[in-house]
This record gives sequence, structure tokens and C-alpha cells, in this order.
Amino acid sequence: SITTKSNQLTKHNRQASKASKEENLKKHLIINKEKERPIERDGGRPGPQGSGSRSGRWAHPTPHPHSFLRPLHSSPSVKYRHPTPPPYHRHRRRIDNPQPSPNPTRPDPHAHSPSRIRPSARPRRATAGGERESMASGGRTDLDGAAVAPLTICVIGAGGFIGSHLCEKLMAETPHTVLALDVYCDKIRHLVDPPPPHLAGRIAFHRLNIKNDSRLEGLIKMADLTINLAAICTPADYNTRPLDTIYSNFIDALPVVKYCSENSKRLIHFSTCEVYGKTIGSFLPKDHPLRKEPEFYVLTEDESPCIFGPIVKQRWSYACAKQLIERLVFAEGAENGLEFTIVRPFNWIGPRMDFIPGVDGPSEGVPRVLACFSNNLLRREPLKLVDGGESQRTFVYIKDAIEAVLLMIENPARANGHIFNVGNPDNEVTVRELAEMMTEVYAKVSGEPPLEEPVVDVSAKEFYGEGYDDSDKRIPDMTLINKQLGWNPKTPLKDLLETTLTYQHKTYKEAVKTQMCLATATPSS
Amino acid sequence: SITTKSNQLTKHNRQASKASKEENLKKHLIINKEKERPIERDGGRPGPQGSGSRSGRWAHPTPHPHSFLRPLHSSPSVKYRHPTPPPYHRHRRRIDNPQPSPNPTRPDPHAHSPSRIRPSARPRRATAGGERESMASGGRTDLDGAAVAPLTICVIGAGGFIGSHLCEKLMAETPHTVLALDVYCDKIRHLVDPPPPHLAGRIAFHRLNIKNDSRLEGLIKMADLTINLAAICTPADYNTRPLDTIYSNFIDALPVVKYCSENSKRLIHFSTCEVYGKTIGSFLPKDHPLRKEPEFYVLTEDESPCIFGPIVKQRWSYACAKQLIERLVFAEGAENGLEFTIVRPFNWIGPRMDFIPGVDGPSEGVPRVLACFSNNLLRREPLKLVDGGESQRTFVYIKDAIEAVLLMIENPARANGHIFNVGNPDNEVTVRELAEMMTEVYAKVSGEPPLEEPVVDVSAKEFYGEGYDDSDKRIPDMTLINKQLGWNPKTPLKDLLETTLTYQHKTYKEAVKTQMCLATATPSS
Repeated sequence: SITTKSNQLTKHNRQASKASKEENLKKHLIINKEKERPIERDGGRPGPQGSGSRSGRWAHPTPHPHSFLRPLHSSPSVKYRHPTPPPYHRHRRRIDNPQPSPNPTRPDPHAHSPSRIRPSARPRRATAGGERESMASGGRTDLDGAAVAPLTICVIGAGGFIGSHLCEKLMAETPHTVLALDVYCDKIRHLVDPPPPHLAGRIAFHRLNIKNDSRLEGLIKMADLTINLAAICTPADYNTRPLDTIYSNFIDALPVVKYCSENSKRLIHFSTCEVYGKTIGSFLPKDHPLRKEPEFYVLTEDESPCIFGPIVKQRWSYACAKQLIERLVFAEGAENGLEFTIVRPFNWIGPRMDFIPGVDGPSEGVPRVLACFSNNLLRREPLKLVDGGESQRTFVYIKDAIEAVLLMIENPARANGHIFNVGNPDNEVTVRELAEMMTEVYAKVSGEPPLEEPVVDVSAKEFYGEGYDDSDKRIPDMTLINKQLGWNPKTPLKDLLETTLTYQHKTYKEAVKTQMCLATATPSS
Repeated sequence: SITTKSNQLTKHNRQASKASKEENLKKHLIINKEKERPIERDGGRPGPQGSGSRSGRWAHPTPHPHSFLRPLHSSPSVKYRHPTPPPYHRHRRRIDNPQPSPNPTRPDPHAHSPSRIRPSARPRRATAGGERESMASGGRTDLDGAAVAPLTICVIGAGGFIGSHLCEKLMAETPHTVLALDVYCDKIRHLVDPPPPHLAGRIAFHRLNIKNDSRLEGLIKMADLTINLAAICTPADYNTRPLDTIYSNFIDALPVVKYCSENSKRLIHFSTCEVYGKTIGSFLPKDHPLRKEPEFYVLTEDESPCIFGPIVKQRWSYACAKQLIERLVFAEGAENGLEFTIVRPFNWIGPRMDFIPGVDGPSEGVPRVLACFSNNLLRREPLKLVDGGESQRTFVYIKDAIEAVLLMIENPARANGHIFNVGNPDNEVTVRELAEMMTEVYAKVSGEPPLEEPVVDVSAKEFYGEGYDDSDKRIPDMTLINKQLGWNPKTPLKDLLETTLTYQHKTYKEAVKTQMCLATATPSS
């Protein structure tokens, strides 16, 4: 793996040299940061990225500086791991491709280690030389002990839930510079409007819609790496706004992929665990013994199929658009040498997720389950369980997940060419169990007694309308990300619910009360 | 169903009035038919539509005029029928849609008939008035006995295998007019270059590439109905040219859908049985009893899932692009009132399919299985069985399938809003069995003795390259098309192979001999 390291260093040098070349242009851009002007999202309705909380700030606990350097710890998710890691089918690269990219580290498949972390994924002990390098690059080293040069990162969808946490992390713990693109900036206002003095020159907000803005290519060219988070990703839209869903998740992403490919820029593309769709097990009779076999429900990046319901179930328009853009990104890698990483988030949750209907989003809006339940709890309404709340989900804390993204950013040789599940298989609950836990935790953090009837059943048709359908169960296989990046989630469900509901209560309780009073006082006209 | 009939008549009147309005423009266009100029296909390599046979003509047996009027006959496919037809989930229509389209006939689900053809699908006995109407409209009536007005049909991909048979049928048996669009016209040269006197004014070839030609919208506006057959649909391309595959099957189809929707024109969109992907049964252990249950392998339009292999299996780029465009077409129907029908062909085969490598296609080209095997037989090479030839397929004769398309064309009220399987569940064979049958049939029609070792095994990786994968089994459920259109396939596999291989032998034998001699005589340079 000396070759790997040397490839990586070459890559870093290349990036550093590019960075210096474009330095002036970047500075110019950051100084002349665009004046904010309101541009409505497609559909005239705030989307999930745009509908930030009113307060916009979340006082996160003291960050661990360089938490990525802590020893890689084990998680109890071993039960979900395949005994033999699947061989990685490396795609072919065109031989006339003038820009060879570093090969991902391919650990010897015969060298099985009983340890949970493969040796290649353990950070090297830094050498004296390495330490000197590290000092020059803000003290950051990658998993192989090489210095990480400061990067310029173009974050598309920076104003959303994930984007806001990523920007905070990058500002707090790295020397990297961020070009933050979105149509709204509510959730990162504390970072960009204006940037606090200690961040001056390191982050700039560019208000633009990627589907019709000529500045996009220039911004991607200025960056070393683009992270695309832009999407319509609220299930309530998939069957009611299928055209917007398809356009937003496939068509609008095309220019980003194209500009990255044409300009030989690395791309971290955010996809979704919905690409897996349903499990094979879900088609078997209830209580069939095969349903207990991991291969019938565990979701593995390079092995599991993508199973969607029929076309009449418009719910799958989102997942299908996401699957096709994944295939396109992969094909750009195989045919044109695009350096890419695809992330499949498995229910990342935490503060600033989605919106509270009527407070910082449309009053008829339906956000994802965490915000739906939070909204019910804040209003002291029973939590609505769709079709019995039997779907099973694994929730991961946003701050755990962001650490995985940072590892991808800083370890291109280990992340390129891969699709990664990012989730927490240990935090599995049914939606009904989640409702019960949230009711209990909310009572604790708010001091309010729980409702006598905390949940109520509704049908999917009633709640979401015609054409809804759902994944039954989502357990991510963690083998690949553990092997390549040594990452494991760490926050148990109860802890992350406590942090999140404390935030929801503090941020929204008064606003919800006020809104409810107004709604009662104002006769509907 | 009086309402249905009156809706339909209104529709036909509307179409007739439109037709007369645009009559002059059309005539002008047909007279000033574009001079043919060679435009290369994307990728610089002839695609399946463009690579017609050199002779270009297939002396088909005397057509049955008005064969669509023959009594609708039964087929022995009853074993694949669901006992209770699945309820059709009608998509919602926007209430502000100014162009209400006729509702599809929804037979009363409680009125089960023991007869194989539902009463509503039987042609009505024509009344005296109906007969007069029929005379005025070229004598054609729809399945409900109403007169069919002459239509102008824009056929995109008219120069391909399916397009050529469709154009022949429309010219031979209907009064409809065809605007034939494609990049090549080899397979319809006998119809368009120039049109024979009796077809003058009824068909015109427009050489254009739908992805970059401003004439497309005008041609769609001139027609009453657009049929989109354009695609890259040879499996050998899916994993080796995934970018072209995705662009051709999704992006290039977008303007067609958009122009139809914006101009309130009906669209018959050709998809593929590959949208179903793999069967659920294929994930069960071999010989598992559930594999025998129809719901684990029979493919039903509005019920079966779409199951694709992982992203590294680039073979599925085609199926995924096709799935997303189906979802987009469906969404245009649900959100904007587009009148659409989606066709899922299950291995339509017959004369003029694909190309023979080195004769009327690239010598390194890999067509679909029928042409691959034909090519081997013509060259007296063993037939190559990929991965043991264990995949199961159901083959339908192109001329049977075209009758189904004609029924869709002439029965919009029964076809709109539906996705239809078009296949022949009775013609199921493994690819190995197909190879054996073809060897036997070819010996009969050519008079040449079969090879001693007629088949040879190759791996998918060797034959198709990295990233190949396959559907295991494809049995179409025929319930819906039988109920809505009374259609059943009729030609047994052996008969259709005999007709097809007779054509292949007559058309290609000499050309293949010549090419093989040249290849032997010319030293490779």
C-alpha cells in the first residue's frame, strides 16, 4: 500500500497546486459574495432544504476537535456483517482516459483479519516526516497517515439539514473552505449571514438554484470537490408531486455530474437507502423462516437488489430517480473516469431536520417521521401511525453520520468508486416503537405528562394519498464502510432522541403555542 | 358503456376535425419530404433501429385484411391468469385539467364471466347506422362497434424492427397515415423510398434524430397520436455503453413526452419487460416450493415489483432508464392529464430483427439472442450459451404483437392510462431449448445438416463483459390486455421460428458466405 499512499500524495499535490492556481479567483468570489435575493423553489413551496428552523442555531455540545483521530472503535453491529466481504467489482476504465485516478485500496481478500477493523483501515502511526506534513496542513492526516491539504469544497444544498451539519463540522474542525450553494440559508445563517470573524474567507453562501444558474460550473471548477445534497426528499411529495420529484432528483443533478466529469473534479453524490426499496423477505409469507436469514433483509451496497413497487405506486418515483442517477454517476466513473463516491443515508436524524408544519414550513406540509412526531408532541396531539407503524427503520444520529462524510472527504483513495451505506443497524425500531420512545423521551425533556392515548392509527391512503407504498425494513450492511473508512456509528437511539427532542422543545414550543392560539382566534375565511 | 361509446365518438370527432384542419400542412410536408442525408447515430455506430437488412424487404404471407375483425380467439394461457383481476388503481387527475380524456372502460369486477373474453371486450354486432359509419371510415370499427376515424400517427423509430412491421400493418390494413421518423430507413425502404403509388400521401419518412431536431414538435402536433419506439435496446450495450443507454432511453424520450403532454396528444410509449427485472422466486433456494407459486414469477403490470441487480451490475442501466421514463409518463398522466398507453414487449421476434454482425451491422456487434443464434447458424458455428443458457424466455411472433398495438391505436378509451404486457406465455423455453429448436428448424429450412456439437458454453463475463447480469424468467400475465383489448397471441414457437429462419436463410445466407470468403482471403492489416 506504499503505491496507494504515493498515489494519494500525488493526488494531494495535484489538488494543492490547483488550489493555489485558483486562489485569487476564489478570494474574489468570497469577497464579492452575492447579495441574497429571494428565489422561490420549484413548485412555489419551501422544500426540505429551504425550510430551516426560525432560530436557525443549534447549540451543539462542545465539539471534539479532531474527533476523526480518535481510535476507531468497534460497534456491536457484527451480527449484520457478512462473514466474507463481497469482492468489489471494479468497473473498467477507458484506456484512453488521460486522467488516471487513484485506485481505491483493495485489501487482500485472502487476508481475513479477526479484528473488526481491517489493518488497512487503521490510521498509521505518524512518522516524523508525516508529522511535519501534518503541521503544514492544519494538523490533519488521513487514515493512512498522510497529510490532508486544505480543500475547497462546493456543497450543493448546504442550507439543508445535512448540509448545515456538514458546514458546521467543516468550519469547526478542519481548515477546508466551503462554497455553500442553496436557495435558502436559514439553517446556516449563523455561519454565513455574515460569517463570524473567525470564519471570514472560509465560507461563502451562493444563493442559486442548480437547475438554471450559469454560475454552477464556475463554482464546481473553483472547488476541489463537490458534494451534492440537493433533492426533494420528503416522502409525502413522492406520490403527489412525482414530476417534481423525478426532475429534482434526476434531471437537476445531471449538470453537477457533467461538470464534475468534464472538469475532472471529485464528486460525493448523496443518494438514499430508498434505492434498495423493499426487502426480498417482505414478499415471503409472514413468519416464513427465510425472513430471518440476513440475505433476505440486510442491505449490501454491491450485492442487494433494488426492489420497487409497480408504476401505479408513484411513491417509488423518488427511489427510481435516485437509482438512475446513481447508475449515471457510476457510468461516468466507468466510461469517463469520474472520481465519485455515492452515499446512501439510512434515516439520519437530529436537530434542524425538515420543518414543523405551520411554524417554519407550510401548515399542510408533511415532513418525515421525526418532524411529524415532534410536531404532534409539541401540539399534544396523538402521533399518527401509518398502516400500523410496522415499518422498521434504523436511525442514525446526524453527528455520527457527518463523521463518515468527513472521512470520505479526506480519504479519496479509500472512498472513490464506492457506494457507502451510512446508518446504524443497532438503532432498529418499528415506527410504533419510535412513537412510544419519543413520547416517553419528550415527557422527560419537556416536563409535560404524556397523553393518555399517545398514538392513533391512520391508513397510508388517508395520510399520504393514492399511490403510496413503503419499504418494510432497512438494515444497512456496514462491512464496506467499516473496511474502507473504519467508520462506525456510536450514538444509541435513546440518546439521540433526547438531544433532538430537547432541541425541538426549546426551538419550537413557544412558536407552536403562538401559532395554535392564532389559529383558534382567527375565524377561517 | 353507452357513456364510454359516446365519449369515444366525441374523441373521434375531435380527432377527425383536427385531422381536417391540419390536412394541408401535412400534404405539404409529405410532398416536400426531406431529402435523405446520412446522419450518424450517436456513438458513430449503427444502432438496432438503423441496422436493417440489406435486402430490406420481407415477402410476408398474404395479409388478412381486417384481421382485427376476426372473432377474438382464446389461447391456452389461462394457467397464468390471476383468478380475480387486480383492481386498477386509477391515478388522480388534476381537477383544473381543461382536457378531460375518455375514461378507460372499467368492467364491473363483480360480473365475472366464465368465458375467457369479457363481454365488454367482444366486438359489438354492427348496427345499420354503425355500418354506415364504418363505410365512411374505411370500414373499421373499434371493439365497441364505433367507427374508427382515419388517424395520423407519428411513429418515432419507424425504421426499426417493430416500427417496420407496424408501418407495414398500418399501410396494408388501415386507412391511417404515418409520419415515419428515424435516423435510418433500410427496414422500411419498400414503403417510403419512394412510397409505392397506392400508398402515396399516406406515409412519409422524416430522417431525424429526436434528440436534436426542431421539427419534432411540429410532427407530433400534426399527428393525432405518437408512438415512441426509439431506444438503444441491445443487451450487449447496457453494460458497455451505459451512458448512451441511459441518455437514449430516458433523456431522449423526454421531449416526446413533453410535446405530447403540452399539445394534448395521445402517446403510446414503448417500454420493455426488463422493467420487471428479476423474479422474486430467483432469490429463493433452487427447488424451493414457493418458486412454483405464480406470484413468485408471473409478471403483472400493476402488481409485480421491479427488481434490478446492484449498481455495479451496469446491465440494469437500461431497465432503470426505462422504469423512470414509465414513471414520468404515468406522472404526466396523473398530474397533467396526458393520455398514454405503455407497452411492455416480452421478446418480440421475427424477420428484420436486429442485424447480422458483419453483414448489416458491425462485425464486432452483439445483437439479441435470435440474431446471435441466426448468425451462428448461418456461419455453421456452434451457438453460444451464456451461463448455461438457463434463462427462461417467452417469445412472441412480431405479427401477433403488432395486432395488439393496432388494438391500442384504435381503442383509446380501453388503452389509455394502462401499461400492457404483450407477450406469449405459452412460448416459454430456456435459452438452451431455444438453441436446440433453432438448430433443428434451421436444418429443416436450409437443408443443411446440423452441427455435431451445436452449442458451446460461454460465461457472461466473457460474452458481455464486466457488469452483466440477467433476468431469470419472464412470464407475462395476460389478464389485463385480454380484458381491455381481447388480445391473445396465437403463433406457436416452432411456427414462428420456421418463418423467421426461412427469412434469415433467404436474406443472409449468400451475404454471409461472401463475407466469410472475403475475411479468409484478406490478410488482416
